[in-house]
Amino acid sequence: MAERGAGMAADIAEQPDVFSRLLSGPNAEAIGQVAAAVAARRPRHIVFTARGTSDHAALYAAYLAEIRLGIPAGLASPSAVTVFGARPDLRDALVIGVSQSGGSADLVEVVRVARESGAQTLAVTNDPNSPLAGASEMVVNVAAGHERAVAATKTYTAELLALLMLIEGVRAGDGTLPADERRELDRLPGLASALLEDQTAWQLAARYRFAGRMVTTGRGYAYPTARETALKLMETSYLPALSFSGADLLHGPLAMADPDVPVLAVVGNGPGGGAMREVLARLGERRADVVAVGPADVAGSALRIPTPDVDERYAPLLDILPLQRLALALALARGEDPDAPRGLKKVTVTR
Amino acid sequence: MAERGAGMAADIAEQPDVFSRLLSGPNAEAIGQVAAAVAARRPRHIVFTARGTSDHAALYAAYLAEIRLGIPAGLASPSAVTVFGARPDLRDALVIGVSQSGGSADLVEVVRVARESGAQTLAVTNDPNSPLAGASEMVVNVAAGHERAVAATKTYTAELLALLMLIEGVRAGDGTLPADERRELDRLPGLASALLEDQTAWQLAARYRFAGRMVTTGRGYAYPTARETALKLMETSYLPALSFSGADLLHGPLAMADPDVPVLAVVGNGPGGGAMREVLARLGERRADVVAVGPADVAGSALRIPTPDVDERYAPLLDILPLQRLALALALARGEDPDAPRGLKKVTVTR
Repeated sequence: MAERGAGMAADIAEQPDVFSRLLSGPNAEAIGQVAAAVAARRPRHIVFTARGTSDHAALYAAYLAEIRLGIPAGLASPSAVTVFGARPDLRDALVIGVSQSGGSADLVEVVRVARESGAQTLAVTNDPNSPLAGASEMVVNVAAGHERAVAATKTYTAELLALLMLIEGVRAGDGTLPADERRELDRLPGLASALLEDQTAWQLAARYRFAGRMVTTGRGYAYPTARETALKLMETSYLPALSFSGADLLHGPLAMADPDVPVLAVVGNGPGGGAMREVLARLGERRADVVAVGPADVAGSALRIPTPDVDERYAPLLDILPLQRLALALALARGEDPDAPRGLKKVTVTR
Repeated sequence: MAERGAGMAADIAEQPDVFSRLLSGPNAEAIGQVAAAVAARRPRHIVFTARGTSDHAALYAAYLAEIRLGIPAGLASPSAVTVFGARPDLRDALVIGVSQSGGSADLVEVVRVARESGAQTLAVTNDPNSPLAGASEMVVNVAAGHERAVAATKTYTAELLALLMLIEGVRAGDGTLPADERRELDRLPGLASALLEDQTAWQLAARYRFAGRMVTTGRGYAYPTARETALKLMETSYLPALSFSGADLLHGPLAMADPDVPVLAVVGNGPGGGAMREVLARLGERRADVVAVGPADVAGSALRIPTPDVDERYAPLLDILPLQRLALALALARGEDPDAPRGLKKVTVTR
């Protein structure tokens, strides 16, 4: 019988290879073709629909769409369509369903209804034969391979990279990435490999062994990383983890911070990280225990998980790696089985 | 010196009067005029921008827009614009900034940029002389009067009602509410008054005196209520409260549920409540301690906070009242001052 957590550990370790595979060969070409089709159609806005971990990939892509394409983008609440019968007029929209399994009935329904209303529709999924892919006009296969653990890790970063390649391809117009963008993307597998050598996450797991709760925070591109970290901690270690954008944290939840609440703050080397400094100062006033995740030391943090110094746009594909390992290590330290969390299944069907 | 919590208690108690004031007289007329202007412009999509409590009012309005108007709607992340310099092309959009103070610099910036790009812009605020109102083409004054406590209560429900009146006015076309809609709205002050007589929230506060965390959940129109309840509990009682849509709860966080985690589930008498039954069954398997908020007893719940039996579309304006009182009562039971939570100010300035 396999060691506890062996599946999740193997999934995490594969991420550099998943990046390499997606960046070259038929999948990259297919993403380029989808990007060209989107650019030709020129959607007036983009609507993402997703659940759980994939919702965080969609959130990242919404930032990318607004910042890199100047196209307004947002996340749909599937229940408006599936439970309340909404029929939004989406004929100017690109509707993107993001789902590792492609099996969630509510997302299939949202995409089907969007397509009927005239939207361009796209499935971003690890299963190109899934119902979601079948319901969509176009498909991007994130090609992460079989995921062993229930908690999604490599399918998450594969979704992030596929969505990044898609949006940069739309920006280019014909789906072909410019040479400088291509060069930055080609660095990702190597950066991910080096990052997986770092052992800080295992030390941190010991530190958080008896933590009763956790707060995660970040701004902009780093906010999805904060959200996904919280979800991994909840799924694998049953640690109640609250995630906030740095700005929202100041609008109320800050009151909750005290020296007993550990805070994980994603602080990149760019505008998002810059905007986090005020948040860290306010957390410092409340004497919160802050661990920073980022490439440089940050005033007000007790410890740091070091991550590569890249443009904040690429950081979400890397910063999550040590945080996935923290979730794995903490689950093991608590005697839990991160490969098969209680109460969960790999494919969650909701309506 | 005033009794602890007297400010928040007074704010909560005023809500029936706030409803009555907004439903008649010059504010209702002004909302009708704004609604007519929106209907004439026929936006292709609606983008809300808000923070904290007002973000939950915006979320409610986004459901309304999709379900009642068939107009796609979503919530913008201000940081894309304010931190990363995004300039989304919003000329087909209605952009609505929601803020009780109207003083948050990031929302002002988002609305200013949207207006420059050709969007129709609207401020929904308790201060029609605020910078947000000044930056917007149109203003809806929610007219809740001075709010005493830092934690927003009456400004929240005033925002909900103003947004409901606005969207039903757009649906009508000329801003004039149909007689049957008007009749339902006119019941709200009386229903709110009766609901404030109920004492269940005070009993529940004793029950949760030593709870270390809380989960709140709801679907559709009830999801903003779950989110706002969690924020109130965090702001006033420093209780880490996690909120999930019922569907998202099944995608991971369910693992965290155990008999020690109290769950507050908003279960209306309609499609959203119906969709919650599966969630409650799954929570029951995990032996979570569920308290239902709604008009009817629900299998799998230990206790219920009774709320009026109304269409789920109106329920958010009422269901939150006993939950605000729960936050107040729990803060008092824990020896905290809900009128002035540690670390918070009434106007939070973020960028």
